[in-house]
Amino acid sequence: MEKIKRNERLGALTRILLDSPNRIHTLSEFCELFGAAKSTVSEDIDLVSASFERFDLGRVETVAGAAGGVRYRAIPSPAKVRRVLSDVSQRLMEPGRMLPGGFLYTSDISAESDVVQQMGEILAASYYDKQPHLVLTMETKGIPVALMTARMLDVPLVIARRDSRAYEGSAVKINYIAGGGSDRIETMALTRRAVKPGQRALIIDDFMKGGGTLQGMVDLMKEFLAEVVGVGVMIATAKPEAKRVEGVRSLLILEGFDEQTGRAIVHPSKEYA
Amino acid sequence: MEKIKRNERLGALTRILLDSPNRIHTLSEFCELFGAAKSTVSEDIDLVSASFERFDLGRVETVAGAAGGVRYRAIPSPAKVRRVLSDVSQRLMEPGRMLPGGFLYTSDISAESDVVQQMGEILAASYYDKQPHLVLTMETKGIPVALMTARMLDVPLVIARRDSRAYEGSAVKINYIAGGGSDRIETMALTRRAVKPGQRALIIDDFMKGGGTLQGMVDLMKEFLAEVVGVGVMIATAKPEAKRVEGVRSLLILEGFDEQTGRAIVHPSKEYA
Repeated sequence: MEKIKRNERLGALTRILLDSPNRIHTLSEFCELFGAAKSTVSEDIDLVSASFERFDLGRVETVAGAAGGVRYRAIPSPAKVRRVLSDVSQRLMEPGRMLPGGFLYTSDISAESDVVQQMGEILAASYYDKQPHLVLTMETKGIPVALMTARMLDVPLVIARRDSRAYEGSAVKINYIAGGGSDRIETMALTRRAVKPGQRALIIDDFMKGGGTLQGMVDLMKEFLAEVVGVGVMIATAKPEAKRVEGVRSLLILEGFDEQTGRAIVHPSKEYA
Repeated sequence: MEKIKRNERLGALTRILLDSPNRIHTLSEFCELFGAAKSTVSEDIDLVSASFERFDLGRVETVAGAAGGVRYRAIPSPAKVRRVLSDVSQRLMEPGRMLPGGFLYTSDISAESDVVQQMGEILAASYYDKQPHLVLTMETKGIPVALMTARMLDVPLVIARRDSRAYEGSAVKINYIAGGGSDRIETMALTRRAVKPGQRALIIDDFMKGGGTLQGMVDLMKEFLAEVVGVGVMIATAKPEAKRVEGVRSLLILEGFDEQTGRAIVHPSKEYA
């Protein structure tokens, strides 16, 4: 095999690591691909790692031990988190986002791949240490951010439905008290195959008001004998202060609407400010 | 500013290009970031480009002209496409995926970020030349693959709902004939804000049987005076042969189930084999 120069290896190495965030690649894998010695690949990794650190692009980490190797985690610096969340807050404060009934229009932003990628990176960074086996969300608007969070953690996404569907097989169905001021009872269903007893679930959604849907997902995980290791959302309303579910991490807070202009008042939550 | 060496630039340059697929970055952007001359950055880009080509990792392309610069497109080689689609086919043929009613269980795969990332890359590669302004899907199971396709094309994802929701504002609602053997009438709704007249829409979904839902999305785009430039799905059933919608590109074909073993028979479609 023709010798591959360092300059040629660095781009490929970076691409392969980024393609599978949080997954450990052995040095041997790269040695074989590049026809290079372990010491050489190790130096390559150090170079990429230093470059990422310098430009705030996440971390390339060496993991020691028998199952060791190298992995990429998209952990953003506090400065980058602030910048990203401040940018999204600004967009949510654009005029014309208040809808009849006092709702905030967020459907464009919650389905924009750039935004949800960045939100997913921030959310995942908060839960690496919990080592979830899966990310759970409830259809529909939370799916994009939940998918990106799952991607960053390298775990499957599991989607609870409003109804069980024939093409998902037998399902567990629960009732829960929907958010908002009302005490409306709604249904949530999840196929039996999706979660195994004892698994650790991270619950992710785009928006929390009363927290009813999130509490529903917590209850659903109990039915599967799974452990909830965290609950994270993109946006939470400041009111009501008392939420049905505890310990939720929200990236942004919707304080309400400016009475004069009708614009939303949104800011990064204290934790991320 | 301290001089940054080529080895340090290559990882960062790769990371930045991959972070925003199909988006054109000017050379000046990198010159400023790295404190380097245009000729130097240009050489860096050539190196990354050669490395990607060599290891089948997509394309880093230089775009000429006033709005020119460099962009990354995740276009996989035909060999890689075959490998990816053959792997997914194998997984769909695992025992135990046939559900009562003759449905195929695909919910795990259609929400697995790795798989939908790769499917999104393949689908996007087929539609770069159509220059869609947005990707449209219908909730729920198609959202992950549609999001990844949208990400690769660098356009927004737009999600049609079964019902219009208060938090999405005024909506256009249509009736359509749902797929399968039945002629059930269903409803599909999309917020007014999501699509502008004259925009080019790419329709993406996870599964097609009769094509009713896809045809519904085509009709929906007519209401918005938008142009449909393509329709792509992950999996299409071989039967019924006549679909309600024309010109659909499917990555995989579900021929049916083996009567003896109950396993699905799935293969890459002719176009990608």
